Amino acid sequence: MSSPATSPEFLKGHGTENDFVLLPDPDDVLDLTPGRVRALCNRRAGLGADGVIRVVPVRDGGAERFFMDYYNADGSVAEMCGNGARLFARYLVEAGWAEPGSIVFRTRGGTRVARLGRVGDVSIEMGPAVVGVHSRALLGDREFAGVAVDVGNPHLVCAGVADESALVALDLTRQPGFDPGVFPDGVNVEFVTALGAEEVSMRVHERGVGETRSCGTGTVAVAAAHLAAAGREAGRVAVRVPGGRVVVDIAADGSTLTGPAVLVARGHLEADFWAAHR
Amino acid sequence: MSSPATSPEFLKGHGTENDFVLLPDPDDVLDLTPGRVRALCNRRAGLGADGVIRVVPVRDGGAERFFMDYYNADGSVAEMCGNGARLFARYLVEAGWAEPGSIVFRTRGGTRVARLGRVGDVSIEMGPAVVGVHSRALLGDREFAGVAVDVGNPHLVCAGVADESALVALDLTRQPGFDPGVFPDGVNVEFVTALGAEEVSMRVHERGVGETRSCGTGTVAVAAAHLAAAGREAGRVAVRVPGGRVVVDIAADGSTLTGPAVLVARGHLEADFWAAHR
Repeated sequence: MSSPATSPEFLKGHGTENDFVLLPDPDDVLDLTPGRVRALCNRRAGLGADGVIRVVPVRDGGAERFFMDYYNADGSVAEMCGNGARLFARYLVEAGWAEPGSIVFRTRGGTRVARLGRVGDVSIEMGPAVVGVHSRALLGDREFAGVAVDVGNPHLVCAGVADESALVALDLTRQPGFDPGVFPDGVNVEFVTALGAEEVSMRVHERGVGETRSCGTGTVAVAAAHLAAAGREAGRVAVRVPGGRVVVDIAADGSTLTGPAVLVARGHLEADFWAAHR
Repeated sequence: MSSPATSPEFLKGHGTENDFVLLPDPDDVLDLTPGRVRALCNRRAGLGADGVIRVVPVRDGGAERFFMDYYNADGSVAEMCGNGARLFARYLVEAGWAEPGSIVFRTRGGTRVARLGRVGDVSIEMGPAVVGVHSRALLGDREFAGVAVDVGNPHLVCAGVADESALVALDLTRQPGFDPGVFPDGVNVEFVTALGAEEVSMRVHERGVGETRSCGTGTVAVAAAHLAAAGREAGRVAVRVPGGRVVVDIAADGSTLTGPAVLVARGHLEADFWAAHR
């Protein structure tokens, strides 16, 4: 791979305020190093984002597909991100790279499917959510009963928050305590208050990150736990997060996350900026 | 003023990691409301910046000039910003709106002059820095001796930090205590360690903002206080800030701030994004 002579094209956007820089790379020539990912994601010296997604056409056997080449802000690669995948799919349709409807795309976590129209929300298949054992989270000296949910990554869903004002009042600036016997690799912790049989509001503390405005797999975990608490294994739950609102469909064979994908701006990176980072 | 039919052009850049969205507005038609400034500066749902600068041609008598129409991230107007002014001047030359050399431009704080070449650092006239009375800052239970400096806004320069590692170790997450009798409108507090007769390193807690990566008037205040402590009323001081390095010239009739101006990206805001905010 070599750097193109021109300045790379970019788009900036977000899904429920989980924000990304998209780098369309139709010829698969962009030399996107960890240093460049960090420089792009730097919120004052760069564009600023939670992650970078290179958009690359690939061939899967006979089919023309797209690869969601996703990087965390620290330059590390990641398998998949539900909020980022919505923006990725919206770009494919918006740019004319794919037709509205179902789009099969590749991620490091395997093949996924997006469903979307010309405008509006985007649905992403998120795989199964497996509700597990009961456990507990500690916030300061307060204990919260919770349940483990596996969505490819580990979650601890604590549904006992009394109401929205109690949810807002929680101090999530510190890592909640958890049982390392149940979660040996750490855990994402969700605090939830029910707004009705099919609507909840949540806040999330992401493993190794801190509180975030939204977490795609977290909303799926919360929806699965909410239905399970009512004895249901399938259904639809609207989930409010600090960055917006998504809808989660839970079925026996998998889950689907539906939510907004907002493009904010597009243009080109300065050639000097791109050249200054390696 | 009415909104243009096309999506507004933008540039994103920074001066010592004090970052800005520039909006070139050659026809003075952009309807830049406080809501749009806040949306642009939102670091997850927008582009993200410390402020927005509309770049507008104006006529001053017979002269063609430019107005730096500067807004804080909260949508309020501001008089002037030394770090933003460098980016503003760099854009004028880069876009061919002005020739390299001296550029006279208008701000809400009056007329200023920028000096710059085709590439490299940019110098901005910052007005006089007036060293005043001795005072004190409190950080937790530690007291720091300092001196008041007026650079159009109030500063308290505390030069007694032992070395770089002591500077880095300071907890600036809270507002430092100060004497309200000396600073009735609050104060920007700088903590400084001397690296030599003409070089210092500083951190700054900005009034009403918190710690920042850089503060233009703060670097001028620190340079003036550093020279005054050596019995000098004029001279040149290199000032390191967390976001980079600037050079300050102090003279009897005014000060000059010289530092980098880095353009990161340019393009257009999405029409939907612009229309969604008022």
